Amino acid sequence: MVKVGIIGATGYAGANLVYLLSKHKEVTISYIASHSYAGKKFSTVYPSMQGLCDLVLEEEDIQKASLCCSVLFLALPSPMASSLVTEEILSRCVVIDLGADYRLHDVDTYETWYKASHGSPALLGKAVYGLSELNRKQIETASLIANPGCYTTCSILTLAPLVAEDLIDRSSIIIDSASGVTGAGRAEKTASLFCECNESYKAYGVVTHRHTPEIEQELSLLAKEKLLVQFTPHLAPMNRGILSTCYGNLKKGITEIQITEAYQKWYGTEPFIRLMGSSLPETRFVKETNTCAIGWVFDHRTNRVIAVGAIDNLVKGAAGQAVQNMNIRCNLGEQTGLDTCCVNPL
Amino acid sequence: MVKVGIIGATGYAGANLVYLLSKHKEVTISYIASHSYAGKKFSTVYPSMQGLCDLVLEEEDIQKASLCCSVLFLALPSPMASSLVTEEILSRCVVIDLGADYRLHDVDTYETWYKASHGSPALLGKAVYGLSELNRKQIETASLIANPGCYTTCSILTLAPLVAEDLIDRSSIIIDSASGVTGAGRAEKTASLFCECNESYKAYGVVTHRHTPEIEQELSLLAKEKLLVQFTPHLAPMNRGILSTCYGNLKKGITEIQITEAYQKWYGTEPFIRLMGSSLPETRFVKETNTCAIGWVFDHRTNRVIAVGAIDNLVKGAAGQAVQNMNIRCNLGEQTGLDTCCVNPL
Amino acid sequence: MVKVGIIGATGYAGANLVYLLSKHKEVTISYIASHSYAGKKFSTVYPSMQGLCDLVLEEEDIQKASLCCSVLFLALPSPMASSLVTEEILSRCVVIDLGADYRLHDVDTYETWYKASHGSPALLGKAVYGLSELNRKQIETASLIANPGCYTTCSILTLAPLVAEDLIDRSSIIIDSASGVTGAGRAEKTASLFCECNESYKAYGVVTHRHTPEIEQELSLLAKEKLLVQFTPHLAPMNRGILSTCYGNLKKGITEIQITEAYQKWYGTEPFIRLMGSSLPETRFVKETNTCAIGWVFDHRTNRVIAVGAIDNLVKGAAGQAVQNMNIRCNLGEQTGLDTCCVNPL
Amino acid sequence: MVKVGIIGATGYAGANLVYLLSKHKEVTISYIASHSYAGKKFSTVYPSMQGLCDLVLEEEDIQKASLCCSVLFLALPSPMASSLVTEEILSRCVVIDLGADYRLHDVDTYETWYKASHGSPALLGKAVYGLSELNRKQIETASLIANPGCYTTCSILTLAPLVAEDLIDRSSIIIDSASGVTGAGRAEKTASLFCECNESYKAYGVVTHRHTPEIEQELSLLAKEKLLVQFTPHLAPMNRGILSTCYGNLKKGITEIQITEAYQKWYGTEPFIRLMGSSLPETRFVKETNTCAIGWVFDHRTNRVIAVGAIDNLVKGAAGQAVQNMNIRCNLGEQTGLDTCCVNPL
Repeated sequence: MVKVGIIGATGYAGANLVYLLSKHKEVTISYIASHSYAGKKFSTVYPSMQGLCDLVLEEEDIQKASLCCSVLFLALPSPMASSLVTEEILSRCVVIDLGADYRLHDVDTYETWYKASHGSPALLGKAVYGLSELNRKQIETASLIANPGCYTTCSILTLAPLVAEDLIDRSSIIIDSASGVTGAGRAEKTASLFCECNESYKAYGVVTHRHTPEIEQELSLLAKEKLLVQFTPHLAPMNRGILSTCYGNLKKGITEIQITEAYQKWYGTEPFIRLMGSSLPETRFVKETNTCAIGWVFDHRTNRVIAVGAIDNLVKGAAGQAVQNMNIRCNLGEQTGLDTCCVNPL
Repeated sequence: MVKVGIIGATGYAGANLVYLLSKHKEVTISYIASHSYAGKKFSTVYPSMQGLCDLVLEEEDIQKASLCCSVLFLALPSPMASSLVTEEILSRCVVIDLGADYRLHDVDTYETWYKASHGSPALLGKAVYGLSELNRKQIETASLIANPGCYTTCSILTLAPLVAEDLIDRSSIIIDSASGVTGAGRAEKTASLFCECNESYKAYGVVTHRHTPEIEQELSLLAKEKLLVQFTPHLAPMNRGILSTCYGNLKKGITEIQITEAYQKWYGTEPFIRLMGSSLPETRFVKETNTCAIGWVFDHRTNRVIAVGAIDNLVKGAAGQAVQNMNIRCNLGEQTGLDTCCVNPL
Repeated sequence: MVKVGIIGATGYAGANLVYLLSKHKEVTISYIASHSYAGKKFSTVYPSMQGLCDLVLEEEDIQKASLCCSVLFLALPSPMASSLVTEEILSRCVVIDLGADYRLHDVDTYETWYKASHGSPALLGKAVYGLSELNRKQIETASLIANPGCYTTCSILTLAPLVAEDLIDRSSIIIDSASGVTGAGRAEKTASLFCECNESYKAYGVVTHRHTPEIEQELSLLAKEKLLVQFTPHLAPMNRGILSTCYGNLKKGITEIQITEAYQKWYGTEPFIRLMGSSLPETRFVKETNTCAIGWVFDHRTNRVIAVGAIDNLVKGAAGQAVQNMNIRCNLGEQTGLDTCCVNPL
Repeated sequence: MVKVGIIGATGYAGANLVYLLSKHKEVTISYIASHSYAGKKFSTVYPSMQGLCDLVLEEEDIQKASLCCSVLFLALPSPMASSLVTEEILSRCVVIDLGADYRLHDVDTYETWYKASHGSPALLGKAVYGLSELNRKQIETASLIANPGCYTTCSILTLAPLVAEDLIDRSSIIIDSASGVTGAGRAEKTASLFCECNESYKAYGVVTHRHTPEIEQELSLLAKEKLLVQFTPHLAPMNRGILSTCYGNLKKGITEIQITEAYQKWYGTEPFIRLMGSSLPETRFVKETNTCAIGWVFDHRTNRVIAVGAIDNLVKGAAGQAVQNMNIRCNLGEQTGLDTCCVNPL
């Protein structure tokens, strides 16, 4: 049994991680901490998990955690993780950071978009970007895994084959996404109140959302040249789910078949990617699963491809992806403890 | 592996059953039928289960089903099941009926409340009322199991200890319940459209709801005398969940401790009942689980007890209860394939 | 034009009041204050009212307000209003308090249920309980009007004819209500976050909700004897609306016709009460209106009446009722500025 | 008083029209028809309007309607209106068609996108495209007014200044929209059931949605050259509202100020357009109003403008726009009977 710890266990991503790890047959939770609820039982905060996880939450202490765990998950607001992780911690355990601190390779880009000082820039070189489908090999041996953002997971996976196979004009990429409200976290903000979100739809973070440079970094690596994307997130009145509708101008002569072949080539054997062709995904089709469902449509009139990806933002976009990374890193079987299907309506 | 069949697989209860059975490690689905979608793959109707159940739906044929299955689940509108089941079918396989046709012992009561002719009154004597916690012994050997209704499961479990231990005045029972919209099924009715249910709350079926005689039958058995209940269902704008708020006038001298003891005595060791004392359940605490969560409050001013039960109407209130019954009947381990906990927000 | 002021203008009830008063053709808003948003334009806080109310919010100052207004509305948390209102204030303007501080006639009852010290018990005798349909005469001349609570408005109006006409056993009254989430106000609480309310239904404040003594006070006056009620509120995942399902044991020999006649007698000419007979109301039928819709069903089996009332908690349950009271008090035409109908879906 | 008639009064757009016309102080409803509910009172179908419109619905008969009305509204599925309207009808009354039959100038385009035969192509030349802000002059004298589609209203208004002032590359226009479920109408379809829409978000009609040629037609007129747009609608789990997020590549040298000036020039005095600059609209800000709220953001990195428009699909996107057109045509005061503001949460 692998001993694991979670720091930041009571936010939505953290709690989902506790859920998945509690049911995972190859791991034991040896450490669980929450600054807000230290001293309380986890199941007092989340009564739906009574009987599944009744551990008492500790005050956050990464030293202590690193001494009793071999895998340590961090689910903390930026830039807190960057000031906690050290070489010493990494010498003792694998760190999987669900936050943003180790995702960007370039510290200046981080500090520009996050408007914060990075606490451990020297570790950035060690961090592996934990999008399993793209970086499986490096994840296998990484000591510091930067779990991707939710929008980025969905957008990168949806666009990767089109970019990598050079099918679309790299200056034309527009990503229009919508997310459920769990994406805003569990902080007590007026904007997250039921009556402020319900029965409404809005764009937010237009041209400034922090997931933009993350998407650009990964797609640029696939393109082997620097590219920019237009990324616009929206908030939809539902708990979970991200849908990314991605637009690209097709390069001259590219056919529908080439698009399909690119998706097949990249994802044909991936357990957590469901290719749906032209019968596009809905977010409910992947709710509570670690699956990214992808469909695409070729527009003969405009010569564009519209590719649509859907994930559960808390699973494939956070906790599930983290478990997948742990499974790869610790050789536990990539699919262990992760669902690919769900029932509807859920 | 137990071979199972489902007739009526594409309604909400049926689809949830397919989901649970597909993941159940002791069974194989050998037959799956749907009148509305015969000839289509199940996963075409429910794309969220692609990869989990890709069987082709057959036209409904109970003869054929009974020849290839040892357990047959029916999820059909009343009184259809009553005209399909025969002694011959029961001689070949165990039938678990998720509909209402075999729940009431008295055919007149059935015909009065359901305004329909019963197709096989002779079989009523054979049917066991499949509320596992109350009738486990009879279920172990039953050939025809009448799976309880959703409201009834929640209401009977919540009230059983109070009635059986003679703590409340039997003429004073009022059950005020709310259900999510899956309770209305998947039929194409104006009243079930998104915009007719969303952002509204209503009572319906007041004094006429068909679950009333079912609750009365089972509570009367526990009370060892005939009693009537006041049952009022409501529709809440959410997918899943039933909450029953149950009122009873306490008999003279009954104390808070006696109430708690009654719940402990009846349910202290039940795997699918979560006793919450005075920290009352919310429907989300049991979403997608087979758990019934129960809390209670003693009112010193009015000398009443208010007991609140919560279930997922499609799981403990339908498909999960059916699997639990199969597990008991076929000796597969009562909890196999059933969850007791969930993550929130879901 | 009547000059009006609002203290506590940016909570949900306050904002709804600003909306109604801004559109009211007989009044001018002369003062508008909010502690949280002092210095900001009202329409910055509520962009949906840009062009309708662009006044700058002042810091709360009841002295100043009372000097420039002839009607002053307070929408403040308990017991704040009780420490602001004085005889001097009342000598200058009519005060309509949307909070709870002047609703209960008995200061001990107030302090027991609200667990707070009342700031001006001497004024309780001056306050008129502002349920227009019941107390119209006194409201016409009142200087201090205690606007009723939301649950209480709905419950009292639904039960009044049954109690006053002595049709039901007074010890048997059970009120089971559900409210939309605006009822919880705009405070930043975890329990009011979208993802904590959405897709769930719960009871809360069971046996302790503060609206209980208010309902009991008014129904006791109608009954001409002290009575207790069992009141259980629930939270439903929607923005607006309250539905109260009220149960009473019928006195011996009472017939269905007598019930109907009682409702007709009491409300037959009321502009803001819609009698629906046995076709029960849904909350969406009265959304954004000042109407209370009431239906009732007679249960021959149990000899109970089930009466169901529906209101918009922010209109008839708060701001609309306050405007109705102002209209009565200032002789502006009781229906001025208030809607009785709405369109669905809304 | 202008006598008006509505054919197709019980769909969502029709019912909203009945609501607005019933409250409109310059008109009387002289004719109201519904095929599905002929013989019933309107308020039986929509109990929320009891007292506001209790007329009995007639079977649809345009001859009869045209004899008793001077303005006739049609809210019918395509291509039904095209087979009902004739020169004779138009000689007797002004027809405002809320459907799609007279929106496209070119009959071939209509038949290609709508896959239906047009019943009166000769009348297309007479029809005026009823987007009031753009075609006010022609509407003043039109006998046949083609009320625009919901997505088109929002998208055209949002993009018009950018296109007409030649600020963006006309081949780069991408419109990504989301709509509430009232957009799908009141037909009994599985896909419109509460549980199929709730808690999910999806794209639909990608590259094939019928509003595409309508947007292209009107923007081409403004551009004075033929252009194509990429239009992708999505379904969001809410009753009302459309948000269009529109992308355009800026022409060389265009500055942020020029964009702002273009919006001011075009809409600075429009009563039903709310310019919000960079504080983007949310759909709830315009709920139940005839306002289109528009904001825009300039992206220095990508040299694109992202303009976001929001409307209520049933008001400015249907019934309200129709009333606005009637007001213009009949000289009743353009704003009469139409709201520009609403209260939140609604």
